Amino acid sequence: MNPRERERERRDLGQQVEGRRAVVELLTAGRRRVHEVWLSGETREIAELAGAAGARLRRVPPDQLERKARTEAPQGVVAFAAPVPTADVDDLLGDPGAFLVALDGVTDPQNLGAVMRTAETAGATGIVLARHRAVGITPAVTKAAAGAIEYLPVAFVSGIPGMLERAARAGVWCVGLDANGDTSVFELPVADQALVLVLGAEGRGLSRLVRTRCEVVASIPMHGSIASLNVSAAAAVACAEVARRRDGR
Amino acid sequence: MNPRERERERRDLGQQVEGRRAVVELLTAGRRRVHEVWLSGETREIAELAGAAGARLRRVPPDQLERKARTEAPQGVVAFAAPVPTADVDDLLGDPGAFLVALDGVTDPQNLGAVMRTAETAGATGIVLARHRAVGITPAVTKAAAGAIEYLPVAFVSGIPGMLERAARAGVWCVGLDANGDTSVFELPVADQALVLVLGAEGRGLSRLVRTRCEVVASIPMHGSIASLNVSAAAAVACAEVARRRDGR
Repeated sequence: MNPRERERERRDLGQQVEGRRAVVELLTAGRRRVHEVWLSGETREIAELAGAAGARLRRVPPDQLERKARTEAPQGVVAFAAPVPTADVDDLLGDPGAFLVALDGVTDPQNLGAVMRTAETAGATGIVLARHRAVGITPAVTKAAAGAIEYLPVAFVSGIPGMLERAARAGVWCVGLDANGDTSVFELPVADQALVLVLGAEGRGLSRLVRTRCEVVASIPMHGSIASLNVSAAAAVACAEVARRRDGR
Repeated sequence: MNPRERERERRDLGQQVEGRRAVVELLTAGRRRVHEVWLSGETREIAELAGAAGARLRRVPPDQLERKARTEAPQGVVAFAAPVPTADVDDLLGDPGAFLVALDGVTDPQNLGAVMRTAETAGATGIVLARHRAVGITPAVTKAAAGAIEYLPVAFVSGIPGMLERAARAGVWCVGLDANGDTSVFELPVADQALVLVLGAEGRGLSRLVRTRCEVVASIPMHGSIASLNVSAAAAVACAEVARRRDGR
């Protein structure tokens, strides 16, 4: 990737959406304007949804669609839409039922998308990304998010440590997730209170500063020989646990 | 991919291992012979481990390594090893503490590798794959598994439905995981007994026949607008729950 492409990726806000499931959710959610949908092949559901959403439909040959696509498997559909609306982090922190997921330097688009999908299904009230350290919301992210981006509020902040300070002032618990955490995620005392769950980067985990700003650093108990989970698997376990505890089970 | 490459992928048994973490575990576990390790760049830990394991070390320029690599980001290291030893499924089913994960048609190598990693960290006693419907253990799988393949026993069977029949005869509970399951995975009555957890294909879920052979079909409660988790995220939640219950918490 050249520097110009990288800069574009960093500024991406979900304007290009690829893959059937992500496009179906984009058209169904109706939260943002969809300008155009490119289709090749058999996708009547999408054609109908595009019509209902007032998006222009363009039938294109598969090779033209593949050239336009920025993911490896667009599944015959690419949509062009307005950017996803972003949320204000203080609004998200002000929700008494806040369940936020913050990413401290996650740079893999698959992981970012997978965490969004996981967080949305667990009832998270928003996701917080650092403007300068994260990937943008690229086509690979929206595809892996499988539509979650259409529902889950996203806030960008200048840095995660500063956001955690604001969270603490707002009475929101800061819970880090790290392979070296000192509390089991299954024994979190604050799972059913307003909280922000902070996930560290692939491989490196939480940064030192973020760790010191967390009131609790939790880990997922390991029962095998290898030492850690992938960040998206760890997010799935932690988010499901928070959801379970909030459900009162 | 041409048919010959696809056939090779199907027969892969982890002989080519890429990525730092996967190669470190390969060399550390010592479960199979490592013939040669190709290195480019700064990787002293791996050079030392390769020496200790009696593997031939070959320093190569980055472009040569990239050409040899079969994943997108080999991180400067490719190892060539004996195939992973496979386990006998009846041996795995005969373990009174059996905690097996069976994959019913999962075809994405990232997902297969991620499920292996998750299962291994949750203390699973083996993974069961269908010989003709699954991907082989390709470099993409071993890389995503991050070393789990070196510890987690793998059994190949001719079909998952037949294996489930053998499981039932052996007194092992068959638990399906599906977005349309009728029991919450958090209320599984058999989590601490010998069980095989069956995961369905991306998108389609469990096949009809597999579903009828499962004594319980469980689902992960959904709290948002989108309908399902990715198979590797679902596996992470379910495996962690089985581990938690076996821990007695």
